[in-house]
Amino acid sequence: MTVSPEVFLAMGREVLGQQAFSTLLGAELTALSPGQVELRLALTDQLKQQNGFAHGGVISYLADNALTFAGGTAMQVPVLTSEFKINYVRPGVGDRLIARASALAVSKSQAVCRCEVFALSGGEEKLCALAQGTIVRQG
Amino acid sequence: MTVSPEVFLAMGREVLGQQAFSTLLGAELTALSPGQVELRLALTDQLKQQNGFAHGGVISYLADNALTFAGGTAMQVPVLTSEFKINYVRPGVGDRLIARASALAVSKSQAVCRCEVFALSGGEEKLCALAQGTIVRQG
Amino acid sequence: MTVSPEVFLAMGREVLGQQAFSTLLGAELTALSPGQVELRLALTDQLKQQNGFAHGGVISYLADNALTFAGGTAMQVPVLTSEFKINYVRPGVGDRLIARASALAVSKSQAVCRCEVFALSGGEEKLCALAQGTIVRQG
Amino acid sequence: MTVSPEVFLAMGREVLGQQAFSTLLGAELTALSPGQVELRLALTDQLKQQNGFAHGGVISYLADNALTFAGGTAMQVPVLTSEFKINYVRPGVGDRLIARASALAVSKSQAVCRCEVFALSGGEEKLCALAQGTIVRQG
Repeated sequence: MTVSPEVFLAMGREVLGQQAFSTLLGAELTALSPGQVELRLALTDQLKQQNGFAHGGVISYLADNALTFAGGTAMQVPVLTSEFKINYVRPGVGDRLIARASALAVSKSQAVCRCEVFALSGGEEKLCALAQGTIVRQG
Repeated sequence: MTVSPEVFLAMGREVLGQQAFSTLLGAELTALSPGQVELRLALTDQLKQQNGFAHGGVISYLADNALTFAGGTAMQVPVLTSEFKINYVRPGVGDRLIARASALAVSKSQAVCRCEVFALSGGEEKLCALAQGTIVRQG
Repeated sequence: MTVSPEVFLAMGREVLGQQAFSTLLGAELTALSPGQVELRLALTDQLKQQNGFAHGGVISYLADNALTFAGGTAMQVPVLTSEFKINYVRPGVGDRLIARASALAVSKSQAVCRCEVFALSGGEEKLCALAQGTIVRQG
Repeated sequence: MTVSPEVFLAMGREVLGQQAFSTLLGAELTALSPGQVELRLALTDQLKQQNGFAHGGVISYLADNALTFAGGTAMQVPVLTSEFKINYVRPGVGDRLIARASALAVSKSQAVCRCEVFALSGGEEKLCALAQGTIVRQG
């Protein structure tokens, strides 16, 4: 059974909406197709650290979640995140964070995915972090 | 200038208290000495994902922050987190998460640190995640 | 001072030729420009493990070296590899391994780079591994 | 069926001896028990890079192999290395490299392992690299 792109995105939004932590942080799913995802987050004060930048934990949350959505929609089975690594390359400064992730190597048991996180400031996207990780079939 | 262990911990708590995101999540600094840290977090419902476990982003936040405190107190200069990797090994189920991190290789420019995250359930600690990362001197 | 693409590649080959370990493994530099590199390796029997596939250490050598060339040529200062992670996604089977790396986030002090390693078999390239790492200015 | 420590080590040495690449590099298995391994390597000139240090690829080979032995002996099923990350913390200078790895979180499907690589110089061991990775059940 295939669903329309609109329904696929709506299904993803339901999953995201069931994550209390994602709701707390205000994450929004702005694009979703098999193996491809975009998540966005308004960079409110409560998501910052002592220097006024996005807390690293917010950026890693966004990367982790984007990797999981990319892997889960590529595999189309229940999944969990096995591991990931993240490199922070610029402070998260701006109005909004945007994470885009893709599944690059998909098998029955796992998907290796990559993600880039950008800070949107004055209409310009600046690369803040790069991540790579493994999403595995659950159970 | 050296300070007493009590004052060192109090200084660390001030830094943590200045991180709005750490306050939002309810993180507490329960032990701190140069290159060694313990952070704890009550696992409230708002920190969970759709299956009722701690959201991976909460666990990675805790690891990221513990690594940074371990590296920063080992180097005793302003630092930032350059990168880390995390392996999730068990769902975060229980009342509380505990992260313990240590600096293992410290130079003037960086500290490579490791962290373990445990879930505390019924008085028993279970290993949930292992992380390793690089903390670098700022600027 | 800028040099022609041909001379740039020739300079890179001299550096590679000075690495005794790269000579032992038979690595060749097949493309090089600032922040972009391709390394190739004939998959001889001595580079294999007990199942007849490329030893993981050969694939990680190739990724490590490609990341370093990408970062070094992007920064154009003496560098060393700080860290990397690698995901193996398929056994290295075939006549030849090919690693392609790019610098994605370059500053004065570091370059974060990514690499893909392919096995070439019957004229077809298959993705074997994905890596991401940090190259830092030396000293 | 359990075997004596001596036979367990001998079995491990047979596996290592079947890896042509390990023979090429001169790796020796100096300790092995379930979930614990030590590998050693004489740091000959052919294993170096242009500055006279151990090539990073030699250190990552040793880490990769030690992680795999630790995970494989912990799980006691055929395994392969899914992924690892490595932080280089000091140039590999000396007569010999020593890698020690342990399995820290073992399940039916995977083992998360850590490794430290030391350079032995003038009788003193110096930490060169720290690694962490995932070993998975084959097939």
